[in-house]
Amino acid sequence: MLKFQIKNKEENARRGTLSTAHGDVQTPAFMPVGTAGTVKAMLPQSVKATGAEILLGNTYHLMLRPTAERVASFGGLHKFMNWDGPILTDSGGFQVMSLSSLRSITEEGVTFQSHINGAKHVLTPERSMEIQHLLDSNITMAFDECVKFPAPYETVKKSMERSMRWAKRSKDAFIDKEGYGLFGIMQGGMHQDLRMQSIKALTDIGFDGYAIGGLAVGEGQEIMFSVLDYAAPALPEDKPRYLMGVGRPSDIIGSVKRGVDMFDCVMPSRSGRTGQAFTSHGVLNIHNACHRDSHLPLDSACDCPCCTQYTRGYMHHLFKAGEILGCMLLTWHNIRFYQQLMQQIRTAIEENRFEQLHNDFMSTYKNDKKM
Amino acid sequence: MLKFQIKNKEENARRGTLSTAHGDVQTPAFMPVGTAGTVKAMLPQSVKATGAEILLGNTYHLMLRPTAERVASFGGLHKFMNWDGPILTDSGGFQVMSLSSLRSITEEGVTFQSHINGAKHVLTPERSMEIQHLLDSNITMAFDECVKFPAPYETVKKSMERSMRWAKRSKDAFIDKEGYGLFGIMQGGMHQDLRMQSIKALTDIGFDGYAIGGLAVGEGQEIMFSVLDYAAPALPEDKPRYLMGVGRPSDIIGSVKRGVDMFDCVMPSRSGRTGQAFTSHGVLNIHNACHRDSHLPLDSACDCPCCTQYTRGYMHHLFKAGEILGCMLLTWHNIRFYQQLMQQIRTAIEENRFEQLHNDFMSTYKNDKKM
Repeated sequence: MLKFQIKNKEENARRGTLSTAHGDVQTPAFMPVGTAGTVKAMLPQSVKATGAEILLGNTYHLMLRPTAERVASFGGLHKFMNWDGPILTDSGGFQVMSLSSLRSITEEGVTFQSHINGAKHVLTPERSMEIQHLLDSNITMAFDECVKFPAPYETVKKSMERSMRWAKRSKDAFIDKEGYGLFGIMQGGMHQDLRMQSIKALTDIGFDGYAIGGLAVGEGQEIMFSVLDYAAPALPEDKPRYLMGVGRPSDIIGSVKRGVDMFDCVMPSRSGRTGQAFTSHGVLNIHNACHRDSHLPLDSACDCPCCTQYTRGYMHHLFKAGEILGCMLLTWHNIRFYQQLMQQIRTAIEENRFEQLHNDFMSTYKNDKKM
Repeated sequence: MLKFQIKNKEENARRGTLSTAHGDVQTPAFMPVGTAGTVKAMLPQSVKATGAEILLGNTYHLMLRPTAERVASFGGLHKFMNWDGPILTDSGGFQVMSLSSLRSITEEGVTFQSHINGAKHVLTPERSMEIQHLLDSNITMAFDECVKFPAPYETVKKSMERSMRWAKRSKDAFIDKEGYGLFGIMQGGMHQDLRMQSIKALTDIGFDGYAIGGLAVGEGQEIMFSVLDYAAPALPEDKPRYLMGVGRPSDIIGSVKRGVDMFDCVMPSRSGRTGQAFTSHGVLNIHNACHRDSHLPLDSACDCPCCTQYTRGYMHHLFKAGEILGCMLLTWHNIRFYQQLMQQIRTAIEENRFEQLHNDFMSTYKNDKKM
């Protein structure tokens, strides 16, 4: 059971608080991704210092290494990785499809080979619930299947229907307790009728929150928004809504406008390691020679250690020299940028001026669509 | 001009303070290596938190990238890399020989090709002084030549004599100012007569400090100590003595016993990235499967974030998964271990019980010679 309170709304945008056994999460919220028990190149204290209140952990990675049983023997993922705030784990379903090899999918579940050592594993709704329980995840995700985009209508329909049966098995296997919850995942591709059938199936089962799956799979922002236009408001009003794997700053602000409360994406952390910086003026590639002699901070509007203590010239040098400190500082900055954006969004909704923030952002923020 | 005050001595071991324009350094001191303008995988604040008071920067790396002129345009190396404490830079001589290709050495200097892009560069005593001045180095090292070990007596003699002529040219080119100084470098291989001739040549020129070069080049600890036995005490009593590129904990404690005040080595930082941990019980390889399920800290005697907040099991996981956080935490620990060792050494000399510390350490510290 998870408590979710909506403080106020502005049109479809919602300002809320999700309460877990490990603390509250102010929504709309962005969750940095801590794939294998660490947000790459960041100390947990630094992640907290960015303003992040909740992390995402990947069931697929953790079940393979160090294994869920081992994490449990260390007292769960919070203790293992030294993060005392809330944690959401995905179900493993999406990454089994994108990372492992030799998959066979039956009604029972998915059999696959580890991308690490080739070992054979089976993931079912029941096993996914067990793993996420062993990890001590505050928010467990139902086990689902996500088809490739584009796919024929019948394929999407069959897959969605199987995901709904798996959602029911997930609910049945989930061990409920105070401050812990289970989210169902809507599927149905880009088809309104399938999305609506999926919502009906999920709400009949009943979950602590509802995720929107099968988006940000290559369909583009316009199509994604068009699905959210009908799918997000159709979800239960009193439960948190989570758009999985999204996204760029403009994706997030546009999705909040359509009623989404939670997001996760590797983009700020991955970009931090490849030299792409999110700034208040748009996206900047620190490898570019134009930064070599620049005494400017990455983003003069940012209060992170990277922007207050280092120049673009120094950051350019670190990336050219392949120095780990470059990844450390730029990851910190990017996650801080995302958290600052979420704070601006939350404050704007509270003050009933989110529409203005949205419009200003969409008209001034440059080139994040290139990423 | 640099001020060096010896607080007290116990036999040949010395407890001193070296004062620079960027602050004091308590000796015996260990300098973490910040090769290319960063101690790899560490924020400067974290380096300071380990107790380190002075860093070493590499002239060879910095002259190639980002270039000394560019560092100067950013206000010098302290400002460029956000380290406000003292910095010592090497002369570039040693690394030109070990890292670059197509070298030709004449009386004038060394012509070489960059290991980064193959560009041709010339390094002379005068150019080395200019580069270190541009970097704003508090302690500039004289430009010298270091022959491979072993080498014939005549080769070592000729090289030492050239290094002494280069030392004079370095002194003549050095721009002296308050809180900045120049160290001469003793050469002469494993030959007592050459070492003594080198000391005579250097002291005739006169330096702010004296480095012992040409050791830790593969001769082994026993031979190194036998050279230090006569060479260290023969250096001027009132100036700091710096043993370059050393070393393992047992090398350091044995060299302090023989009168050395300063050390630098990549060992703690490089080992931090490869999974070797220095602990109060000896060296530990975190990759070993025996650590997989260990709830113990790396070193229960250590107060660093790695040891107080994480288990060996978690550290093992990070290294197996190739996570940057593993390098960050283990580098921090190793540098803290070295700084704790230096603090113990300094306190022991002050309390006239260094001999006891030395003997206890040499009889109990395990396997650092394997590294």
